[in-house]
Amino acid sequence: MLLTRCLLRALRSCSTAPCPRHRPSSRLSVRDALGSHNASGERVKVQGWVRSIRSQKEVLFLHVNDGSSLESLQIVADSSFDSGVLTFGSSVEVLGQLIKSPSKRQNVELKAEKIEVIGNCDAKAFPIKYKERHPLEYLRQYPHLRCRTNALGSILRIRSEATAAIHSFFKNSGFVHIHTPIITSNDCEGAGELFQVEPSSKIKLPEENFFNVPAFLTVSGQLHLEVMSGAFTQVFTFGPTFRAENSQSRRHLAEFYMVEAEISFVESLQDLMQVMEGLFKTTAMTVLSNCPEDVELCHKFIAPGHKDRLEHMLKNNFLIISYTEAIEILQQASQNFTFTPEWGVDLQTEHEKYLVKHCGNVPVFVINYPLALKPFYMRDNEDGPQHTVAAVDLLVPGVGELFGGSLREERYHYLKKQLARSGLTEAYQWYLDLRRFGSVPHGGFGMGFERYLQCILGVDNIKDVIPFPRFTHSCLL
Amino acid sequence: MLLTRCLLRALRSCSTAPCPRHRPSSRLSVRDALGSHNASGERVKVQGWVRSIRSQKEVLFLHVNDGSSLESLQIVADSSFDSGVLTFGSSVEVLGQLIKSPSKRQNVELKAEKIEVIGNCDAKAFPIKYKERHPLEYLRQYPHLRCRTNALGSILRIRSEATAAIHSFFKNSGFVHIHTPIITSNDCEGAGELFQVEPSSKIKLPEENFFNVPAFLTVSGQLHLEVMSGAFTQVFTFGPTFRAENSQSRRHLAEFYMVEAEISFVESLQDLMQVMEGLFKTTAMTVLSNCPEDVELCHKFIAPGHKDRLEHMLKNNFLIISYTEAIEILQQASQNFTFTPEWGVDLQTEHEKYLVKHCGNVPVFVINYPLALKPFYMRDNEDGPQHTVAAVDLLVPGVGELFGGSLREERYHYLKKQLARSGLTEAYQWYLDLRRFGSVPHGGFGMGFERYLQCILGVDNIKDVIPFPRFTHSCLL
Repeated sequence: MLLTRCLLRALRSCSTAPCPRHRPSSRLSVRDALGSHNASGERVKVQGWVRSIRSQKEVLFLHVNDGSSLESLQIVADSSFDSGVLTFGSSVEVLGQLIKSPSKRQNVELKAEKIEVIGNCDAKAFPIKYKERHPLEYLRQYPHLRCRTNALGSILRIRSEATAAIHSFFKNSGFVHIHTPIITSNDCEGAGELFQVEPSSKIKLPEENFFNVPAFLTVSGQLHLEVMSGAFTQVFTFGPTFRAENSQSRRHLAEFYMVEAEISFVESLQDLMQVMEGLFKTTAMTVLSNCPEDVELCHKFIAPGHKDRLEHMLKNNFLIISYTEAIEILQQASQNFTFTPEWGVDLQTEHEKYLVKHCGNVPVFVINYPLALKPFYMRDNEDGPQHTVAAVDLLVPGVGELFGGSLREERYHYLKKQLARSGLTEAYQWYLDLRRFGSVPHGGFGMGFERYLQCILGVDNIKDVIPFPRFTHSCLL
Repeated sequence: MLLTRCLLRALRSCSTAPCPRHRPSSRLSVRDALGSHNASGERVKVQGWVRSIRSQKEVLFLHVNDGSSLESLQIVADSSFDSGVLTFGSSVEVLGQLIKSPSKRQNVELKAEKIEVIGNCDAKAFPIKYKERHPLEYLRQYPHLRCRTNALGSILRIRSEATAAIHSFFKNSGFVHIHTPIITSNDCEGAGELFQVEPSSKIKLPEENFFNVPAFLTVSGQLHLEVMSGAFTQVFTFGPTFRAENSQSRRHLAEFYMVEAEISFVESLQDLMQVMEGLFKTTAMTVLSNCPEDVELCHKFIAPGHKDRLEHMLKNNFLIISYTEAIEILQQASQNFTFTPEWGVDLQTEHEKYLVKHCGNVPVFVINYPLALKPFYMRDNEDGPQHTVAAVDLLVPGVGELFGGSLREERYHYLKKQLARSGLTEAYQWYLDLRRFGSVPHGGFGMGFERYLQCILGVDNIKDVIPFPRFTHSCLL
């Protein structure tokens, strides 16, 4: 490549128009170049990858993209530029004048004075082909290259914007951000199958654990956030969580991101649900307004019709039904379910789908689940004979469960009883301590970040909204 | 606790002043209460934890903190409030009028109409004692309670602000945020000892790996960021990284956070160093300006004198020396080192300390390290006979290495040779691919986030700047 590069440098210096002296060119991102509406010939330098080439008799049109936006910058060059080395996928540096484009397709274009190929691209070997719209399944085989397509470029820019929007939402609401730990010795919360962590075989000590105790990858930052909610009234975390589940579903990953919040002095699910709905709607609106082209690509080519479905979700109030009502709705349904809906049994995917549809494809909160179905830390509603806890799940169209949350059992004696029932008293002394010293009513929730992106964008498979998906039998790169 | 609470509710409704009708009280955070400079008797509700109690003949003074700021809100109550249940550490809800304080110590105070104890605190059993300034080492024993002290409260608020500042710095500079994976099959990068990941014993499949290949916890997101820098010209990640090293040092953790950035079309270390220095200075200034009281606590009580040391770092340009110059400086030093400084051998902590001191306690970039000391991906300087690569480390006072970075070897044939030399050709075909298809000169760096906080705050032990420290023999909670 070095050779090509030097050669081209020499080549170009002969064939290009002379550069006016004392007018150094400033480096511009494609986004900034496209945004300069009063382009009037300023000399700029743009760097990126060739996304299209069209050679006419006298003129060569290139489109160069650098990832700063979906749209590429049109480069107009003299046909004397050798388009042979300017292949799709190659990286280039273009020096020229930014001018108003005569075409209606774009506001500005770059009149090239010098085009340097920085890195060649062997079009035959390159798995991404010029002018082809590759299916997302095909691209999944190439996790190291798929970000170079329009689709993944847009999704990853949106993911970045959504990440920022979520951080902003919480910061603006006065939440303190906490890095809850990834490696944890809490092994019995029951949120799912665990991954265990040990030093790799090379240095494994035969008869002891590195941490003295068995250590696992976190399934949730909740218990650690609860520690913090004994000092800060509003805390959140946004990080990776893990499940060692043997699943190849379009909604599950072994490694995925969760946004979790915990709020002190909260005494009703209503207050929690307000924050959940606010988080979803505020950040979705921010993403829509900050990445209109990227979102449009998804809503046009990946999930046609999804724009309307999303707007319907955003403009309506989310609904609230109790678990008991949900079971009644399911039992009265004319549909035949594979799993018969019954009080005291978990809702299945088919049930969730039916409920969302029944509610007019508006997200629906299901609250107050049977105590027996839920983990020890959820707050007892003391509402026998149908004994429930103050739990809440948010079901959304197309994705199913997006949020899960609850009020936490802040009452020492109730919690102690629950822990004893689960045989966890000894392991959770520290958790009981939180209730011995200035306990407060509190609650919180977790939102699956990839499912949130699926819900906003209409992307069917969770593997397409995360840069490097990890699941059973697959850990590429 | 429930009992106490009901009792108090009844109790208070007798003893408090009558509440004016139709004037509902709004809930206010302590921070917002303290910030209302024109307090003129508006009725508000404040919730938090009791940080001090002073009972006089006719008046009871409380200080209530809710984690929204270091400063607590002074509550002034009738001495008829039973101060017996109002113990240090208990949680309370106070209803009253926000008024201008007659004392010069605070602007506002809350004249209590009703004080409700929400959760008692058994002062005898509570490891945090009233009016005691506990050493950080002592608090480390109580990871579930130490956030309730002033010191940890301040550090965690600062950590949260610094996290936001770092995200903002990159967003404002046009970087795309990427979640690089935590679990990875790259096992041979050589950045340190690895943790291996397997499903916990309960469901371990006897003769195969969950991911089909051995999987490890990431030591760096760099290689995955490099994938992205083939499509986006500026990317960053900010997440947990891991080392299975048997270290109990004050600068090492088994789980710590790294800020990593990768920039395309960068051809000189100078450009990288500019971003590194900008990141450090810009975000440090933001933290200083957004958390003045919290930073002051650290600079006053935890690390006296550190304020001046930090200002010295912020107002001076960082220095640049080559590795070769560094060795010469060390060899000419009058100091006796345990490890004799020698060209071709790694710098030791004692060397780093000396260099920083030699440079007047200003952060110093050390560049161009021997090729033989560095991993395969660093760019060959082709400068024999002393063969170096374009690597850079930033050494800072008190902490040592804070950043590490390099230009990456973007030339296909050079990289291929390096991989062959390390026996990694097969495992890194995907990484070679990045150089086959539109390769560009690029470089990046990583900054240890906990060390960054140590450097800004002067906190000596890394275990005190992370909510839940993980290291050999310790994984509490």
